[in-house]
Amino acid sequence: MADGPVRFGIIGCATIARKLCRAIALAPNATLHALGSRSIEKARSFAAANGLSGAVKLYGSYGDVLDDPLVDAVYLPLPTSLHATWAVAAARKGKHVLLEKPAAVDAAELDRILEACEASGVQFMDGTMWLHHPRTAKMREIVSDRGRFGELKSINSISMFAPNREFFEDNIRVKPDLDSLGALGDLGWYCIGAFLWAAGYRLPSAVSALPDVTRNSAGVVLSCSAVLYWGLAHETAATFHCSFLAHVSMDLAVVGSNGSLHLKDLAIPIEEGSASFEFTPGAKFVDLHIGWSVKPEKVLVPTELPQEALMIQEFASLVQGIRNSGCSPERKWLEMSRKTQLVLDAVKKSIDAGCILVHL
Amino acid sequence: MADGPVRFGIIGCATIARKLCRAIALAPNATLHALGSRSIEKARSFAAANGLSGAVKLYGSYGDVLDDPLVDAVYLPLPTSLHATWAVAAARKGKHVLLEKPAAVDAAELDRILEACEASGVQFMDGTMWLHHPRTAKMREIVSDRGRFGELKSINSISMFAPNREFFEDNIRVKPDLDSLGALGDLGWYCIGAFLWAAGYRLPSAVSALPDVTRNSAGVVLSCSAVLYWGLAHETAATFHCSFLAHVSMDLAVVGSNGSLHLKDLAIPIEEGSASFEFTPGAKFVDLHIGWSVKPEKVLVPTELPQEALMIQEFASLVQGIRNSGCSPERKWLEMSRKTQLVLDAVKKSIDAGCILVHL
Repeated sequence: MADGPVRFGIIGCATIARKLCRAIALAPNATLHALGSRSIEKARSFAAANGLSGAVKLYGSYGDVLDDPLVDAVYLPLPTSLHATWAVAAARKGKHVLLEKPAAVDAAELDRILEACEASGVQFMDGTMWLHHPRTAKMREIVSDRGRFGELKSINSISMFAPNREFFEDNIRVKPDLDSLGALGDLGWYCIGAFLWAAGYRLPSAVSALPDVTRNSAGVVLSCSAVLYWGLAHETAATFHCSFLAHVSMDLAVVGSNGSLHLKDLAIPIEEGSASFEFTPGAKFVDLHIGWSVKPEKVLVPTELPQEALMIQEFASLVQGIRNSGCSPERKWLEMSRKTQLVLDAVKKSIDAGCILVHL
Repeated sequence: MADGPVRFGIIGCATIARKLCRAIALAPNATLHALGSRSIEKARSFAAANGLSGAVKLYGSYGDVLDDPLVDAVYLPLPTSLHATWAVAAARKGKHVLLEKPAAVDAAELDRILEACEASGVQFMDGTMWLHHPRTAKMREIVSDRGRFGELKSINSISMFAPNREFFEDNIRVKPDLDSLGALGDLGWYCIGAFLWAAGYRLPSAVSALPDVTRNSAGVVLSCSAVLYWGLAHETAATFHCSFLAHVSMDLAVVGSNGSLHLKDLAIPIEEGSASFEFTPGAKFVDLHIGWSVKPEKVLVPTELPQEALMIQEFASLVQGIRNSGCSPERKWLEMSRKTQLVLDAVKKSIDAGCILVHL
């Protein structure tokens, strides 16, 4: 089994675990070995509803999954407030950790998780799927092309969807004790991650929330906006709006001095088999300003596996390297999560303090 | 001649006057009667370079155009700092006024112009061309559809282009004595106008510039960002960025509770014969969140005349109504300009005061 597929244990039966079960099944180097819930009935019910193989071990507690010596790695789709406890416990048991986003309630909790992973020599990755889509690699080629794209000038992102009424009553993402970050954690995470991605993971120098924040009666953010600034004079800005209160939109616009890039479906591509973006290189207004010299070019990027299966494959491949070849964990995933969390913390601080400018 | 085409006089030979000469030639109810520049040589040179008919009267002063009794209406492509002087003079001579945007240096100057137009009973319109494209009417149908679009939730716009080096040395739009509003006046005007359009011309309750402002050595804004807020609690926000320092982008995203609308070429459509936008009505994530239930629909809106010719046609039609049928001037154009200018003034005030929140 040393060079066999990575054996996953899933801790928690959240809705998103259904998507990850399928992703683990699709990834060529991963297999679902165990599933643990707070009760064995819940685990059985989830397994039946999702057609899991009888070979998957079902456990009636989270701890039992961590005690299973055959589990190489755990995927944690738990409410954010439980991340630190269970991710640290998993790392201490030598399990590699794939952690649903937002990674933690704040950077201090994330640091406890990351320190436990480093101490145990296990791989850490957060569950940001879009980073693994081949579209993202194709976009990286473009924004890093100093000729065709030029210098980064402006970034904008919106990330929203309008869930049904039950969501606002029952969903963990609107409960202060479970997911205190609300829409900022669930959707703002994507915008902030996209800004850092576009900026080559340079941290902004400062951030500020905008006063259009909406909270539920328990104080959880249902929608908010913020601006990130880079440079001493704040000369580059990135604005985002995230919301549980508006129609599905997952826009990203990245504009450079020589070209611009747009997409509409950052976190969840409209179609599974391929995703697109538009790139407009070197457009000028034509004579008389009655049109543009260059039309936006639609770049279609097919993918054989959905982005979540590519995430599993990448994570499992790193785990195999550690397990089979003595490689060290890949630190870049940890650093990307940590920077995203630091910016998210700063936005939260700004919201809570009345939209002050928070320096990083 | 009473029911003939409206006879235009153009005052000033700015580059954009070339576009408007063509537009006047294309509009079925307009004719170019006169062109005035600061010298007769300039007027002759412009006429020759642009193949104007020998029937067009050429004048060596702006005042001569206003003194020509056959001129019904003037188009003023002058630097913004000259708008008040010449638009007021034109109105007092009974000429209808089509005024290039930004309408004025500030609302006080614009009010002088509007008062002069009202006192003389002449039509006023600013030169915002995109409002006249049939795409705009089609988009209006959608955003006013409470079922398919729902309640307005979020608006974003960017308006930029990267002119050549000479622009930054010679162009009136970067000279403090000619166009003191810089990129805010030239490009921010579009963003602010689009926000007011999307909000049904409800004025925002407050605006704030963002600290990413860039100025030239003379203090003229080369790029800036701002946020407009509606509602007592600032619950709806619209963010824009305008810039002379980045690749061509003229994005508008208007998101409602039930649908979203996107376009990339608001002020200057990519192609002259038709313009498009994307509308996504009622999209949800499909089961497992592996795609969207509805794909964005590309709506292509052909136009027989370019938007600037439609603007001339609309303006001339109003002038004909006043001239031939005793109609009153259409006040909506005046009100749209004035609201845009009021918001622009507030953004300018916020910039100059260090990004304070300015209430309207």
